[in-house]
Amino acid sequence: MSRRQVDVPALVAAAREGSPRAVARLITLVENADPKLRDVMQALAPHTGRARVIGITGSPGVGKSTTTSAVVAAFRERGARVGVLAVDPSSPFSGGALLGDRIRLSEHALDPEVYVRSMASRGHLGGLSWATPQALRVLDGAGCDVVIVETVGVGQSEVEVAGLADTTLVLLAPGMGDGVQAAKAGILEIGDVFVVNKADRDGADITVRDLRGMISLGDRSEPGLWRPPVLKTVAERSEGIDELMEALDKHLSWMEGGELRERRVRRAAGEVEAIAVRTLRERIGDVHAGQGLQELAGQVVDGTLDPYAAADRLVSSL
Amino acid sequence: MSRRQVDVPALVAAAREGSPRAVARLITLVENADPKLRDVMQALAPHTGRARVIGITGSPGVGKSTTTSAVVAAFRERGARVGVLAVDPSSPFSGGALLGDRIRLSEHALDPEVYVRSMASRGHLGGLSWATPQALRVLDGAGCDVVIVETVGVGQSEVEVAGLADTTLVLLAPGMGDGVQAAKAGILEIGDVFVVNKADRDGADITVRDLRGMISLGDRSEPGLWRPPVLKTVAERSEGIDELMEALDKHLSWMEGGELRERRVRRAAGEVEAIAVRTLRERIGDVHAGQGLQELAGQVVDGTLDPYAAADRLVSSL
Repeated sequence: MSRRQVDVPALVAAAREGSPRAVARLITLVENADPKLRDVMQALAPHTGRARVIGITGSPGVGKSTTTSAVVAAFRERGARVGVLAVDPSSPFSGGALLGDRIRLSEHALDPEVYVRSMASRGHLGGLSWATPQALRVLDGAGCDVVIVETVGVGQSEVEVAGLADTTLVLLAPGMGDGVQAAKAGILEIGDVFVVNKADRDGADITVRDLRGMISLGDRSEPGLWRPPVLKTVAERSEGIDELMEALDKHLSWMEGGELRERRVRRAAGEVEAIAVRTLRERIGDVHAGQGLQELAGQVVDGTLDPYAAADRLVSSL
Repeated sequence: MSRRQVDVPALVAAAREGSPRAVARLITLVENADPKLRDVMQALAPHTGRARVIGITGSPGVGKSTTTSAVVAAFRERGARVGVLAVDPSSPFSGGALLGDRIRLSEHALDPEVYVRSMASRGHLGGLSWATPQALRVLDGAGCDVVIVETVGVGQSEVEVAGLADTTLVLLAPGMGDGVQAAKAGILEIGDVFVVNKADRDGADITVRDLRGMISLGDRSEPGLWRPPVLKTVAERSEGIDELMEALDKHLSWMEGGELRERRVRRAAGEVEAIAVRTLRERIGDVHAGQGLQELAGQVVDGTLDPYAAADRLVSSL
């Protein structure tokens, strides 16, 4: 595959003017962990921090894409430019991951003010925690007013990614294991707004009641804290989307009263830490190539060195 | 929770004599990333490298636990001491994860020569790649002749963990998305032996044929390379387990002809690297506590510093 030259200033300028192709190429640089990212991020830095970031997470089948599509439509009615990052923890396909989701978001396919991108986390050292905030930063710098990060709530890292949004929307569906599953998946703690989608199905009210019960059992009933609402939607028919938008706005207002900056600093800290760890891993990789790690590992296999002593030698060789 | 004093030499000695309690406590040290691990691994080092490590992976529902149980029974018939590490990528519950699997392995519950342990990866910095090889090392050092690492093939790290076994067994079931799913999940590349379980169901032969086709399309048809067999089992009724054991033995013999040490060195290298990365992360964590990272992250949020420049400062402060 021939590798085109990357003209970073031109690419960043085009992305800021809203060129989908330029945005696409920048996010591909993120996916490939391209060395040019350093220049890209430097050029983008002054133009970031404006996008409102909404995380949407939930198990497969709860209707994430349909809900995302409905929320995108609602933001488009307000005239906002919207970016969507769909993050798939298991797919090995870069760029083309979650094709199904993209098709489901096809009602926005011809809208130049909606940018949809799927990202796969496989193969990435550091995975989502490394790539997602940087892709988000690209969309932010490209002038998106709203960025929606859609993740499947499977692994811990996906949950963490969703939890670093300004507002995290947790989606459930009636009868899908309900509250216990939510608790197990660790999504109860990270939700700012809970939505029971497919609320026309049996058991929706029970799921809502269970969720409200579990939330009131948590620490969140203290005065001054945000008390996550539990809403019902039928996203397929856009039912309940107005109420959902209202809840999202209410949460943003509450965040702007204090916690917003704190949460964004936490997100940036995670991003910086992930980049730093990657840098250090690359140095280990260099040692690796120099046979240092191989020799140490051989001694560990022979039982003449324990892995901690080997790691100490590796670290001190950096 | 009161913290008992850990007498490492006594604990290691007891584990080597086969005390399940001692083994359990050592693996809990691994799960907790206890500082004492350093001493534990040093004490265990001379006694490791003897266990034969078999990875078993596959999607939920293919019958991993039933197959594991049948394989354990077959090894027990040979008089081997067997350890089972069941690794759950999504569960937040440490120690008690995969309770269902443990119950399904209950036919071995009273057998002192079978040690079953579930591990959760959530909450671990470095996750499975950090904890699993060390838990495996504990079971190896405790005199297990065979250690089976059972993982759900969901995320990349689980697949990697399974792929570091001496022999990796990939389980599928008829009609469960079949070959395409296997290819997507990245398990085609790591399987040394493929098993279509629940082979009494419709479509088993199609799945077998698809798999064989995909394997022959790969690089593996070159002479001298191991050609992974595709077997059929009905683990619930122990059908096909003799043939499976034969295939596992055949693969081990082939490995002993050359690649075994190479793969074990690769496993040890991953282990050493994971420990080194954790050490470096801890140093970043110390910087974190010292507010360095927070200040850098604040500047990133303000757009006065890009995340790469911030990461550079973080790394140089280590």
